[in-house]
Amino acid sequence: MPAKSEAGSEVRAPREMTLAKKILAIGLMSGTSADGVDAALVSFGNRIQLIATDYFPYPSSLRADVLRASGPECDADLVCRLNAKLGKIFGASAVRLARKNKVPLEDVEFVGSHGQTIRHLPSHDKGGLSSTLQIGDGSEICRATGCIVVSDFRTADIAAGGCGAPLAPFAHFSMFGHKKEDRVVHNLGGISNVTWLKGGGGLDSVTGFDTGPANMLLDFCAEKFFGKQYDKNGSEALKGAVDKRLLAHCLAHLFLKKDPPKSAGRESFGAGYFETLLKKFGTVKPLDFMRTLCAVTAETAVGQTLKHFRPRGKVRWILCGGGAYNRAIVAEIKARLGSKGEVSLSGEFGFGEKSVEAVLMAILAFRTVQGLSGNLPKVTGAKNYAVLGKISLPGPD
Amino acid sequence: MPAKSEAGSEVRAPREMTLAKKILAIGLMSGTSADGVDAALVSFGNRIQLIATDYFPYPSSLRADVLRASGPECDADLVCRLNAKLGKIFGASAVRLARKNKVPLEDVEFVGSHGQTIRHLPSHDKGGLSSTLQIGDGSEICRATGCIVVSDFRTADIAAGGCGAPLAPFAHFSMFGHKKEDRVVHNLGGISNVTWLKGGGGLDSVTGFDTGPANMLLDFCAEKFFGKQYDKNGSEALKGAVDKRLLAHCLAHLFLKKDPPKSAGRESFGAGYFETLLKKFGTVKPLDFMRTLCAVTAETAVGQTLKHFRPRGKVRWILCGGGAYNRAIVAEIKARLGSKGEVSLSGEFGFGEKSVEAVLMAILAFRTVQGLSGNLPKVTGAKNYAVLGKISLPGPD
Repeated sequence: MPAKSEAGSEVRAPREMTLAKKILAIGLMSGTSADGVDAALVSFGNRIQLIATDYFPYPSSLRADVLRASGPECDADLVCRLNAKLGKIFGASAVRLARKNKVPLEDVEFVGSHGQTIRHLPSHDKGGLSSTLQIGDGSEICRATGCIVVSDFRTADIAAGGCGAPLAPFAHFSMFGHKKEDRVVHNLGGISNVTWLKGGGGLDSVTGFDTGPANMLLDFCAEKFFGKQYDKNGSEALKGAVDKRLLAHCLAHLFLKKDPPKSAGRESFGAGYFETLLKKFGTVKPLDFMRTLCAVTAETAVGQTLKHFRPRGKVRWILCGGGAYNRAIVAEIKARLGSKGEVSLSGEFGFGEKSVEAVLMAILAFRTVQGLSGNLPKVTGAKNYAVLGKISLPGPD
Repeated sequence: MPAKSEAGSEVRAPREMTLAKKILAIGLMSGTSADGVDAALVSFGNRIQLIATDYFPYPSSLRADVLRASGPECDADLVCRLNAKLGKIFGASAVRLARKNKVPLEDVEFVGSHGQTIRHLPSHDKGGLSSTLQIGDGSEICRATGCIVVSDFRTADIAAGGCGAPLAPFAHFSMFGHKKEDRVVHNLGGISNVTWLKGGGGLDSVTGFDTGPANMLLDFCAEKFFGKQYDKNGSEALKGAVDKRLLAHCLAHLFLKKDPPKSAGRESFGAGYFETLLKKFGTVKPLDFMRTLCAVTAETAVGQTLKHFRPRGKVRWILCGGGAYNRAIVAEIKARLGSKGEVSLSGEFGFGEKSVEAVLMAILAFRTVQGLSGNLPKVTGAKNYAVLGKISLPGPD
């Protein structure tokens, strides 16, 4: 049964999720910005409802370790230790979210945790071996919470011949699908990914792909030029102007030429790429550099979406992810869309911008504990549907 | 119900495993020698029966990668790629074992895979963070076989405050426990671990620990001095004599002074340690070096077992693992035991020496899919029992 969300729009739960009894779950997301854990307490009933959300920033030493682990200087010792350490942090985050909201952990049926991506190497397109590495041990989360835990979601899609990403479209469909309105959901995380939800379309009409860089490059910029972890609300970028040469250079990135299915990571738009930009465009003023990278995000997001989805008429663009708070990005997107789209923030639909990905992990975990698939082969390029993630079971005592 | 094994001795299945219908499973073990995959096809009925076993050696380039991953020169890229690659190799091994024995994979209920240990850092005793890293992705095994897969067994015990090792004692109890006879099961793998099975004792009487180095050091020696992957049957070692100074030096290793629970890995007896031995004892003749390391294995195995278990009267020593084929080790063990023990090989009890650890993974996986614990807190030092491993579910298609 379709049900009304707070914002009055219809949010459909996939048929399997229509339940008489409400089921509580926690979703945990730790994105490529590597700044902390977004946690969401979710209930599954005749619709998916976000009950509470919280953000637990990493201590700065941990963030440094995570960034080191994501870079070339990471050895297996660090992988091993961080896997356990992050697992403990994720577990503690779930426990704190439940406690703050006075929900006993015994009432939480399961936890879905994305983990911290430290490598993402999908090379099926080159006929090579594909692999991906998300750390933050599910056993540690399981021990801390006493809940069933689903973790390590991307490998099953990789094993099925997919890119392991994006995984958001399935969950975006559950959260934002509408019976009439065509919608585009744009997640502006470290990397930007887009989902196309045809009005009234079923799951098999859902498509999506990674459009390119978002906060990852902006955060490098904020750190380098302003000594800040990120450009809050895009306030620095708003003071700058777009540098056309830098913009053109970025838009020539090979990733942007590829057709979907495709997914990107630090390998494409990480520290190495940023260093190259700095070397080539050292004369561009910091504020302009920042603004231009916002334009890159907007141009790749809008340009590729229009190119690959070819929407007819006006569509609703729903923005989520940390980048949805960046007013420069939002302004650049609006400018590029013009009359082709109406821009909303995901919070208007009951799912706060920063919590969408955490909700997503709870939705995907719910699929897994039911033995149901969570990937969309058309989106990831997988040969088959796959039950995502690995299940850790709490102990008998 | 106790049941007769082929050898006429009684092999008890834990109560939970007493089943009317036989359940087929595959266990996969890839030990610290990093030479390949031991695979076992096992049936669980009113007793645990080994139906077929096989060994799939790694191609030499893969072995080189695995050894590199286990050493200091391993970066996160290698961890990521090897995780997927080994998962495919493990999956293919399970498929080949089933096919060779004309067992349809649909009849195999689940696969338990240990994975390749590339780090093992249990530091609870120093009050620090404990972690362990076994790779060989369960999702890949799941995709290749279409079976439920349990992998990554050690992290749950680590999360419960244990060393994550040894995990063998629970399974040794199922395979070799006897209602009257006191038994010691000695697994001579890369590292040697021992299990104490009191005659007629329940699971709570089972103890065990890692005694020290076995094939890991011997294989370095075989490679260095004889250009061989290992000293087959101990034939080189048998030609040498024990060097007392080298023996005394090895027996002074700090690990051997520790009281159980304890577990060891490449961190204690890996390439670094072997290099130190070479530097200090470069004048010892190769054959003597080899023989002395066999004596180290035997002395640590027997000495620590007698010290910590204090068996009364004569006990049966059951040897398994690749080192059970090393006649020099077996001779050294027999010489040290004298009248205190009667030495048997595990094959006499229906479980071939090289297959015991693979059977073990099937037994532990069987516990997990039933939601039952597989660790023994007294053995690993964990604060609690834990359901071991992470479960990957096959896709809906």
